[in-house]
Amino acid sequence: MAQKTVLITGCSSGIGLALAVKMARDEQKRFKVYATMRNLTRQDKLAEAAGRTLGKTLEIKQLDVCSEESIKTCVSSIPDRRIDILVSNAGMGLIGPIECQTIDEMKTVMDTNFFGLVRLLKEILPDMKKRKSGHIVIISSVMGIQGILFNDVYAASKFAVEGFCESLAIQALKFKLQLSLIEPGPVITEFEKKVFEDGMKMDLSAADEETADMFTNIYLKNYKQIFQILGQSAEDIAEVISQIILCKNPPFRHQTNTLYTPMTTLKYADPNGDLPIDTFYKMVFQHDKIFSASLNFIKLLRWRSRKSFDLGNPSQ
Amino acid sequence: MAQKTVLITGCSSGIGLALAVKMARDEQKRFKVYATMRNLTRQDKLAEAAGRTLGKTLEIKQLDVCSEESIKTCVSSIPDRRIDILVSNAGMGLIGPIECQTIDEMKTVMDTNFFGLVRLLKEILPDMKKRKSGHIVIISSVMGIQGILFNDVYAASKFAVEGFCESLAIQALKFKLQLSLIEPGPVITEFEKKVFEDGMKMDLSAADEETADMFTNIYLKNYKQIFQILGQSAEDIAEVISQIILCKNPPFRHQTNTLYTPMTTLKYADPNGDLPIDTFYKMVFQHDKIFSASLNFIKLLRWRSRKSFDLGNPSQ
Repeated sequence: MAQKTVLITGCSSGIGLALAVKMARDEQKRFKVYATMRNLTRQDKLAEAAGRTLGKTLEIKQLDVCSEESIKTCVSSIPDRRIDILVSNAGMGLIGPIECQTIDEMKTVMDTNFFGLVRLLKEILPDMKKRKSGHIVIISSVMGIQGILFNDVYAASKFAVEGFCESLAIQALKFKLQLSLIEPGPVITEFEKKVFEDGMKMDLSAADEETADMFTNIYLKNYKQIFQILGQSAEDIAEVISQIILCKNPPFRHQTNTLYTPMTTLKYADPNGDLPIDTFYKMVFQHDKIFSASLNFIKLLRWRSRKSFDLGNPSQ
Repeated sequence: MAQKTVLITGCSSGIGLALAVKMARDEQKRFKVYATMRNLTRQDKLAEAAGRTLGKTLEIKQLDVCSEESIKTCVSSIPDRRIDILVSNAGMGLIGPIECQTIDEMKTVMDTNFFGLVRLLKEILPDMKKRKSGHIVIISSVMGIQGILFNDVYAASKFAVEGFCESLAIQALKFKLQLSLIEPGPVITEFEKKVFEDGMKMDLSAADEETADMFTNIYLKNYKQIFQILGQSAEDIAEVISQIILCKNPPFRHQTNTLYTPMTTLKYADPNGDLPIDTFYKMVFQHDKIFSASLNFIKLLRWRSRKSFDLGNPSQ
């Protein structure tokens, strides 16, 4: 197999960093990785993790998904502009009551999480179509298929990604391109830590008392516990992504966290959409003790469920 | 029942106009309708259709969902700022290859279809929460749950609406508010006519030949046929919406077009998401004659399926 070029966005930490390093370290040297980030002053952690692969199978480049110019410059600097695998990973979070968020803050989330992907594709898709080869891997979220309390705008941005990709999927098939949406649940990274910290220090004065209380005493409290118990590591996700990249027939969608699947499945069981809402509502407001107990029970079971993350044998 | 105030956006034509007139003409005078539109110079058609209800159960007001200021002014002009039922209907379409669309054009669609709803809710939701009563009706689309070829950005904007509403739904339940997503399929209105006309005169020079051909000779050709055969009228949709408004327990989601349901259901049958893509692909590229024949068969069956649009008896 000829070496494939991989461009990954958002590599200064978290999933992007873990994936870039994992692919650059491939023993068979099957990948040449362009690990990109908005701000090159934040490259130290990646450079350190990349170790000896730096300058060989891994190169660090500047790319800001919010700038068409920056994307164009980066893509044009790659030999023949050839990108075999694009991993759209850069993104940002936002939690809290919408009463306490400005439209401008919300637009920044949409601009990064959704339009960031669109800008990348506008630059890279025509080349892939011409070559009739390429794999586009998009880091979406379980919140791209099921909304969650106080994640209104983040969920909207990830839903937008999903709708956009579903529309594009038929064209992709026609041009023999592959499109894969990766949908992680909670992941323990700096990204998530920052979202939580921003939530903790949020100015809630624009919200009524009940909403503010719900955010602080129910949402943020559960957030921590859910991450501790259900959270995967960036390396877990990188492992799943690299398996999907090596698959002969990669799936269009893949949830990385089997512990989360029962929640997203509720939606499909009721076309009216009331079932997941009622269930989440009861879980949070009426059966919070049972909810906590369940989380602890899941913790015990986790070790045993490891195997179910396996995607089968990747092709060589 | 005391008269309820209804605020509807996007009433210069189509679904908004039909719904405003229908509710204003309610024989029991149960509604006071504020029919709003961005540009009041386009009010003639509504004023004419409203007839005697104008100035009585129907008032026309200026409201641009892209302006926080305009929304604030309109809401503040309503007695006690009391809106019992908000119908978020204003929206715009966009079709075509993404290679031929600018990020700015795409952002205008997102700004109207998604942020328009967010701006309305930021202004109206706190009042509804305080009163612990209110019904928010959102005109989404089947393209809010299933993406369609060459509707990438429109589908993204409607998916965003769905993700946002799913996240908000649990809060709504806590505050005893009702939230309903209406998901029409093709509707025969000026909106759709304009989208089609814009598609017909689109500059396709930025797309490769195959993509341009796919858009013109497959998509646009099918578009017309699908609308002629599956299309509902604005009055059909207004009828469904008013039934949902009168429901005692309105559903969270409702598709108005039962002929469309088999297509959106495919998604739920395969968690990997490949089934609907393969099906749409084969339908469009491999079995186009069978597809055309099926459409004509559906045409014959349409009359018989009318009854299935019935939502049951509305409460009084």
